[in-house]
Amino acid sequence: MSKIFARDLDEAGAYKLLTGVVVPRPIAWISTRSRAGISNLAPFSCFTFVSSDPPMIGVNCGLRDGSRKDTARNIAETGEFVVNIVDDGFLEKVHVSAADYSADVSELEVLNLDCAPSDSLAVPRILSCPINLECTLDRIIPFGRAGSEFFVGEVKLFHIRDGLLADGKVDSELLRPLGRLAGPVYGKLGEVIRMK
Amino acid sequence: MSKIFARDLDEAGAYKLLTGVVVPRPIAWISTRSRAGISNLAPFSCFTFVSSDPPMIGVNCGLRDGSRKDTARNIAETGEFVVNIVDDGFLEKVHVSAADYSADVSELEVLNLDCAPSDSLAVPRILSCPINLECTLDRIIPFGRAGSEFFVGEVKLFHIRDGLLADGKVDSELLRPLGRLAGPVYGKLGEVIRMK
Repeated sequence: MSKIFARDLDEAGAYKLLTGVVVPRPIAWISTRSRAGISNLAPFSCFTFVSSDPPMIGVNCGLRDGSRKDTARNIAETGEFVVNIVDDGFLEKVHVSAADYSADVSELEVLNLDCAPSDSLAVPRILSCPINLECTLDRIIPFGRAGSEFFVGEVKLFHIRDGLLADGKVDSELLRPLGRLAGPVYGKLGEVIRMK
Repeated sequence: MSKIFARDLDEAGAYKLLTGVVVPRPIAWISTRSRAGISNLAPFSCFTFVSSDPPMIGVNCGLRDGSRKDTARNIAETGEFVVNIVDDGFLEKVHVSAADYSADVSELEVLNLDCAPSDSLAVPRILSCPINLECTLDRIIPFGRAGSEFFVGEVKLFHIRDGLLADGKVDSELLRPLGRLAGPVYGKLGEVIRMK
């Protein structure tokens, strides 16, 4: 076994290690809308749920060159976002949307994604995604010295593609989720094992 | 598309839905030690990292029958825990360790797992696991009305099996991580795609 003390790592080194250790990570493809009305889309994989009463999710969003990314700024300013859940057919588009577009460019338009208005928010949701979660911001929690922020949202409304739900649960094999691994690496779902 | 409003779901219904939507989830197999010196082991899949300077991880832990589970109580009391990362060969043991053993039973002994003392903590780590993260508690954040708590820990020391590290990163294909899906369902890693 190799022993690596955190105190010997710089931020980039720790990030590189963590992305390979905490795997596979689910992907939140987040659409937001700026105060100026420009929509934005970007993927985040430090994503989990943190409460079921009410349903709440959390997404970690680091700074880029010392400033909030478009997604983080839009959520902080408007209090609204949609988590679009992708299947493995979206790999290419998810990856392209992670690039650093300027704030006045809508990735939704660049990627030519079919959108619909949300029911409860001013943020568009992606119609072709199997699941959309309409969320309102609950709070933003800063962690560490590098300005990482954990955005916690309350899920107000679940949109779920017909056929995916059985007995109140989404069938993972039908969903074919995409997982994020270390670096620019993605994993499809392999063998699925159902335990007793 | 089906529309499900969160206000129409009870806690169990929302939990069932969230576990199928936020997938695949990484697994933190957490070892702890009680004040009385009894070691404990249980899996958690609402797990992500939240900072890289310093490296910090977060794990969500719900209540069981209104009380903290052994893991949550031990972390709150001692401020220490080890996140053991499993490969897909541990599926059976991970699943068995999720059962509700009484607090005076050590799952590490029941499962006959080979342990070693941690370098910086009084908590044992599992030697046969490919990765162990020695963590100290940073804070506990309650979310929602049902008593869900988010345990945030600082990673002090990474133990990583020889051969898994290349260029400061863990090779996911060599690691063969296990993902958690909805219900008692687990997924192995399928096709891995490296993007530019």
